Amino acid sequence: MSEYPKPDAIVDVVLLTLHADTLCVFLARRDREPFKGAWALPGGFIHVVDKDGVEEDEDVEDTARRVLREKVGIVAPYLEQLYTFSGRKRDDRGWTLSVCHFALVPGALLAAPAATGAETALFPVDMLPYDLPFDHEAMIAMAVRRVRGKSSYTSLPLFLLPEEFTLPELQDVYARVLDKEIPTSETKSFRRKILDQGFVEEIPGRMSTPRIGRPAQLYRASSDELSQVRPSAPLARIASAR
Amino acid sequence: MSEYPKPDAIVDVVLLTLHADTLCVFLARRDREPFKGAWALPGGFIHVVDKDGVEEDEDVEDTARRVLREKVGIVAPYLEQLYTFSGRKRDDRGWTLSVCHFALVPGALLAAPAATGAETALFPVDMLPYDLPFDHEAMIAMAVRRVRGKSSYTSLPLFLLPEEFTLPELQDVYARVLDKEIPTSETKSFRRKILDQGFVEEIPGRMSTPRIGRPAQLYRASSDELSQVRPSAPLARIASAR
Repeated sequence: MSEYPKPDAIVDVVLLTLHADTLCVFLARRDREPFKGAWALPGGFIHVVDKDGVEEDEDVEDTARRVLREKVGIVAPYLEQLYTFSGRKRDDRGWTLSVCHFALVPGALLAAPAATGAETALFPVDMLPYDLPFDHEAMIAMAVRRVRGKSSYTSLPLFLLPEEFTLPELQDVYARVLDKEIPTSETKSFRRKILDQGFVEEIPGRMSTPRIGRPAQLYRASSDELSQVRPSAPLARIASAR
Repeated sequence: MSEYPKPDAIVDVVLLTLHADTLCVFLARRDREPFKGAWALPGGFIHVVDKDGVEEDEDVEDTARRVLREKVGIVAPYLEQLYTFSGRKRDDRGWTLSVCHFALVPGALLAAPAATGAETALFPVDMLPYDLPFDHEAMIAMAVRRVRGKSSYTSLPLFLLPEEFTLPELQDVYARVLDKEIPTSETKSFRRKILDQGFVEEIPGRMSTPRIGRPAQLYRASSDELSQVRPSAPLARIASAR
């Protein structure tokens, strides 16, 4: 359609999760040049068609879902477009643009090794490896800012929790994402605020079974809340990818 | 770099201004197929190189600036990336992505006819022409939401004002952008809030010279504020483009 040379079009995904009580990003070692062997965000070219010429990605969100499926082996419960990074200088090979997305997933979803066999790891967002390639460091920083900015007034952090959780676990997720301890003296008012907003609901009769201490009431994201906030596919692991 | 066919990469710009006390968007009649003759947002392909093979756009923001220069004849005082619209279905000619930007400009900057000779017009954002092509209607709606969302707590609406303005003019801009009358009873508290935030400052000794009524103190955006919020080129009309 355009008579001009086109830029290369990529989608990168900043996949955030909670691991060992810390907000972490998923990185994989690059298996090809440039920066072969470096830790990098999962990403890939937009596939207008696949190798056999058959239509593949429907839009950039579809590319992001394919990247998560092929390179991480999951379907993320929350996926949002972040920003398009672009230009002549971000990749020595030529003019590229990357429609960066971010995804939130519960830690348990990433417990198994990645589907590709590539070496993968979770890094605390404040302790990233040196020399991330391209503008991946800027992408991660922007994703963390976006999530923190939205977390104080939305139910976004719920997507980092398993389906059933206790109120202390819920409080902990908000504290980790916002990088802000909630002092014991404010526990009561924090819980009241969350419960008042209707983000979560009690699961009647379901209690946690801790190895130490007393069982606690279990909660879940309220179904209204999920359908309103969730822009992406339902929470599920891709069985066939494992 | 990619062995796959690449999508066409476009930048469209939602140019917002105040005209006759109404938030308006700039549209131009398309001079080519598809949708020849239809009102549409100014936009264009990313030019990795120009027609002579010389490097042209540096990144997508540079493309947006070129579109505004070539198709509107201005440098916008405020330019921000909005969202990337993409997919197989948004244009019958093939898989495209458009990195949509929005720009804010004072009405006076658009008083002269467009540089291209194309028919152009300002439409109130709530009274758009029927059947805008592609997803241009969704782009305009998202830009208006973004500007309204940011306006209530930032100095963003200042970019719609001329360099010098009175407090009633300032108040009017916020009211129009937020689409919410500020009742006379709240005028005082509105002004105090704006002045307290340090967005604007008095211009010592400068008074307006209205044809009717008393002169009023003139204000300007405070210089701190401008340098913090302004992500784009300084306010200037491109002389050579007229």
